[in-house]
Amino acid sequence: MIRILESADKEAIFARDARIADVSGAVAEIISQVRKRGDEALRDFTERFDGVRPENLEVDRREWDEGAEAADPDLKRIIEKAAANIRAFHSKQVKNGFMLNDRNGVFLGQKVIPVDVAAIYVPGGTAAYPSTVLMDCIPAKLAGCPQVIMATPPGADGKLAPAILFAARTAGVDRIFKMGGAQAIAALAYGTDSVPKADKIVGPGNAYVAEAKRQVFGDVSIDMIAGPSEILIVSDAKSDPKVLAADLLSQAEHDRMASAVLITDSRELARRVSDELEKQIPLLERRDIARESIDKNGKIVIVDSVEQAVELSNELAPEHLELCVDDPFSLIDRVRHAGSVFMGRNCPEALGDYMAGPNHTLPTGGRARFSSPLSVDDFTKTMQISYYSRDALKEIATDVKGFAEAEGLTAHARSAVIRFEGDK
Amino acid sequence: MIRILESADKEAIFARDARIADVSGAVAEIISQVRKRGDEALRDFTERFDGVRPENLEVDRREWDEGAEAADPDLKRIIEKAAANIRAFHSKQVKNGFMLNDRNGVFLGQKVIPVDVAAIYVPGGTAAYPSTVLMDCIPAKLAGCPQVIMATPPGADGKLAPAILFAARTAGVDRIFKMGGAQAIAALAYGTDSVPKADKIVGPGNAYVAEAKRQVFGDVSIDMIAGPSEILIVSDAKSDPKVLAADLLSQAEHDRMASAVLITDSRELARRVSDELEKQIPLLERRDIARESIDKNGKIVIVDSVEQAVELSNELAPEHLELCVDDPFSLIDRVRHAGSVFMGRNCPEALGDYMAGPNHTLPTGGRARFSSPLSVDDFTKTMQISYYSRDALKEIATDVKGFAEAEGLTAHARSAVIRFEGDK
Repeated sequence: MIRILESADKEAIFARDARIADVSGAVAEIISQVRKRGDEALRDFTERFDGVRPENLEVDRREWDEGAEAADPDLKRIIEKAAANIRAFHSKQVKNGFMLNDRNGVFLGQKVIPVDVAAIYVPGGTAAYPSTVLMDCIPAKLAGCPQVIMATPPGADGKLAPAILFAARTAGVDRIFKMGGAQAIAALAYGTDSVPKADKIVGPGNAYVAEAKRQVFGDVSIDMIAGPSEILIVSDAKSDPKVLAADLLSQAEHDRMASAVLITDSRELARRVSDELEKQIPLLERRDIARESIDKNGKIVIVDSVEQAVELSNELAPEHLELCVDDPFSLIDRVRHAGSVFMGRNCPEALGDYMAGPNHTLPTGGRARFSSPLSVDDFTKTMQISYYSRDALKEIATDVKGFAEAEGLTAHARSAVIRFEGDK
Repeated sequence: MIRILESADKEAIFARDARIADVSGAVAEIISQVRKRGDEALRDFTERFDGVRPENLEVDRREWDEGAEAADPDLKRIIEKAAANIRAFHSKQVKNGFMLNDRNGVFLGQKVIPVDVAAIYVPGGTAAYPSTVLMDCIPAKLAGCPQVIMATPPGADGKLAPAILFAARTAGVDRIFKMGGAQAIAALAYGTDSVPKADKIVGPGNAYVAEAKRQVFGDVSIDMIAGPSEILIVSDAKSDPKVLAADLLSQAEHDRMASAVLITDSRELARRVSDELEKQIPLLERRDIARESIDKNGKIVIVDSVEQAVELSNELAPEHLELCVDDPFSLIDRVRHAGSVFMGRNCPEALGDYMAGPNHTLPTGGRARFSSPLSVDDFTKTMQISYYSRDALKEIATDVKGFAEAEGLTAHARSAVIRFEGDK
């Protein structure tokens, strides 16, 4: 049964201190093997962990075509619609450079340049997630990356799920590699004969994938270290308890570490949501996972007002935040820290997971305090440009010299003025 | 003497594999102590490493006022001018959110929100760098961070340099803490009684600072792991060898690990720059450092054309790139990977280090392939907003259900349609 808390002690609410198993040694060894032995190491690890030894690590044109073709027709239509909505939202993120030219002979600018090779990791395992393919690949394509590649572990039959292949085609992925786990991250970070070295690696994964991303960070850019998923619902007394319970359970079914939390100013609602959870959990396919997640990490917190609930939410900086109130737009300016906010009583988080358009790769574990949802920006970087004419430099050179000398960097000082040594 | 290479083998050019000492154990111990014992640990480490035990870790109003007042008047004027140029450039980076409202009953948006507490680390040691204070704090202030705090180690007299205090005031820093090294990073990452917990920590530092940033990454956002500084100059035959040598030396004087590289299509120029280096090195104050840096890491590479030089530069992704040619704007579209580009023969890197306006905190070690110069973006994050009306959700709910079921997440599917169970 979910716990109902009367105090707003933030430490008690999200179960965030759960430590994952230390796999750093095993991961370091996998990375070292892949760096040393390249494709052969990849094949060995795939055989060991995925139960199949792929001769070709890359999905070839025919395999891709035939696989994508085999996807369910209705699912194809849904994937295309989701892709259109995701593309519409993320296309607004495409950033322009700028120039500044307000002083004589001075031209300054900032260019926005896509990374050369963007790599998307898509987990395999118990379920295939075509939605992750769309959410992670579409921003990379919109950024203009010349090469968007994808890595995902093959099934025991050596194949990839049709929906994954279809989503990759829809999203515009250029190349797909059948590899998973830490070995995939290593191959993407350092390159092998078959796999190009990536500049950016994004996408969720298990503890091995997360640890591998942590270890290659610095040699390649990564998106974020993702923790267990979280939902926080802020609700007044008027929401339907059945609906709130269903929304909490959509998070709880993810995994046993997931956290589903409701903050409300209504004791009556709290009780009724708790009852609804007990009614609904037995009806779920993934009831065992949901049961454990709700019992261990689920909470209902009673506060004095919706405004206080939002304050508490800011402290927690949840991944997903639902504002189940009549007028969520009157509250949104108070929300400072959350990954994705679902406004009003008709925006279940599941809508955002699949179809709404905004990204579903979001900062967890309170990292919404300083991290952003995955976006087009993740696949670009900026480059500064400075041009000074000779006259413009001359005008400022003695200031450069003065500043450099104050910092004890006299060769810096010399280089600023040496161009004018012959001038009078 | 600098080495002249006839081959464009990129591995040979920048000495990037230089491993720094492994200080991870020592740093982990320092972080653990600061987390456990807070201010007292900070005082202990400051006494041990900086030779002074600060009673008050924070600089108080009077100490700040009097110190800033004592700065050299000419330097004050230069700092104010530099700050104005830096502010002008970085104000162009301030990003707006957006909204998307092109479907009935659907409102999607992205808000840009500054982090609550931005922390800037400013190294102490042999020299005080007020330019770092400006470059790192001004973007945080422009981002709108409610609290911009600074950490820098005190001198043996327990004080901070007047120029640092003046630059901090000019940049708009809110609070300054006298602490350095890994202990400062730990205090900023986790907070103590005196020091607020930061959301973002930026700024350069020694191996201990870099390792501490690596270890706290994930609990707090950091800017980047900075390596030794680099300059790459691309020049045709027409540049003045004396000027190029001075520009190379401005980089070489930084530290013994710094790299200064010239790529040119002129054998004659290569020879003359080499001669100039030998002439100029003995004239420098920091000649020992420059000597070692040039002899160990300096290179002149001969290529067939300026275009080939730019190609090679892209392979290297240098921190600083000077394009010493008549018409740099005709080349800039070919430059894909560099932190900051200095256009033409009158843009020494030193101009950018202090006065031009763009940032001087730049990606090193080839990380310009995927990282950006420090900018206003480092101090903000985005938050997604989704609103669907009941009708709009109803229209798309069965698609959400279909997608969720295809991924085996049936509680997601339920939450999308449960709102319409009573409808016909």
